[in-house]
Amino acid sequence: MTQLYETTAVNQDGMNGKSYLKDGETYTVSSPLSKAEGTNPEELVGLAMSTCFNSTIKAILKEERIESASKVETTVKLHRETEEPGYYFTVDVYLGIEGMNEEKAARYVEKTKKRCPVAKLMPISSTVRFYPTIF
Amino acid sequence: MTQLYETTAVNQDGMNGKSYLKDGETYTVSSPLSKAEGTNPEELVGLAMSTCFNSTIKAILKEERIESASKVETTVKLHRETEEPGYYFTVDVYLGIEGMNEEKAARYVEKTKKRCPVAKLMPISSTVRFYPTIF
Repeated sequence: MTQLYETTAVNQDGMNGKSYLKDGETYTVSSPLSKAEGTNPEELVGLAMSTCFNSTIKAILKEERIESASKVETTVKLHRETEEPGYYFTVDVYLGIEGMNEEKAARYVEKTKKRCPVAKLMPISSTVRFYPTIF
Repeated sequence: MTQLYETTAVNQDGMNGKSYLKDGETYTVSSPLSKAEGTNPEELVGLAMSTCFNSTIKAILKEERIESASKVETTVKLHRETEEPGYYFTVDVYLGIEGMNEEKAARYVEKTKKRCPVAKLMPISSTVRFYPTIF
């Protein structure tokens, strides 16, 4: 038994209305192309990735007894498909580690993307990319 | 120029603290294994998927002039890796369409997973699965 936790999220309204957790919060959602209040899948994906990726690098740094702070910024962009109907996202993840230059941080980007559960859900494709940056 | 929107999410605290949007809300995050208040990557991935997948099926039904309601439930489970350090998620997405049996809904699951931007970020792998269900 490897399962530690589960949660279920429900949407009945589509992009404009509410999404909710069966055992938790309700969130107002709205199209990113509207001015309406609310979050959207782009924000939610970015928050999930930044939180998970930074939590993972912190675990790796701790294992290596490195006491540097770290920061993850994830930019999610919405694009219109050109060859078919619909849209796609690009996801760009930037990891900075205190006191490390980009070359050194790049080694930790590689380690972290192999271990972070959210990164593992997304293939290493042209639309999901990971970069080292200065902290 | 196909880009329509972008957002950037930042985390400095890891799994326990805050994650925030550069131009928006701040969210309290906490480990799903703790009792602390706050959301977590599992909830955020589930909310993103349910919102995006249901928005996409609604667009497809509208194109086909089908006026049925739809509902998406996404269950995200956290598992411990057995062969290496760390964790992984499984993501199970259930689509129900009013008035359709599972066989008919299954055809729409296939169409939707090819078009939904969040589904397109995740490979069709053993850890991300899509199912028809009764509405």
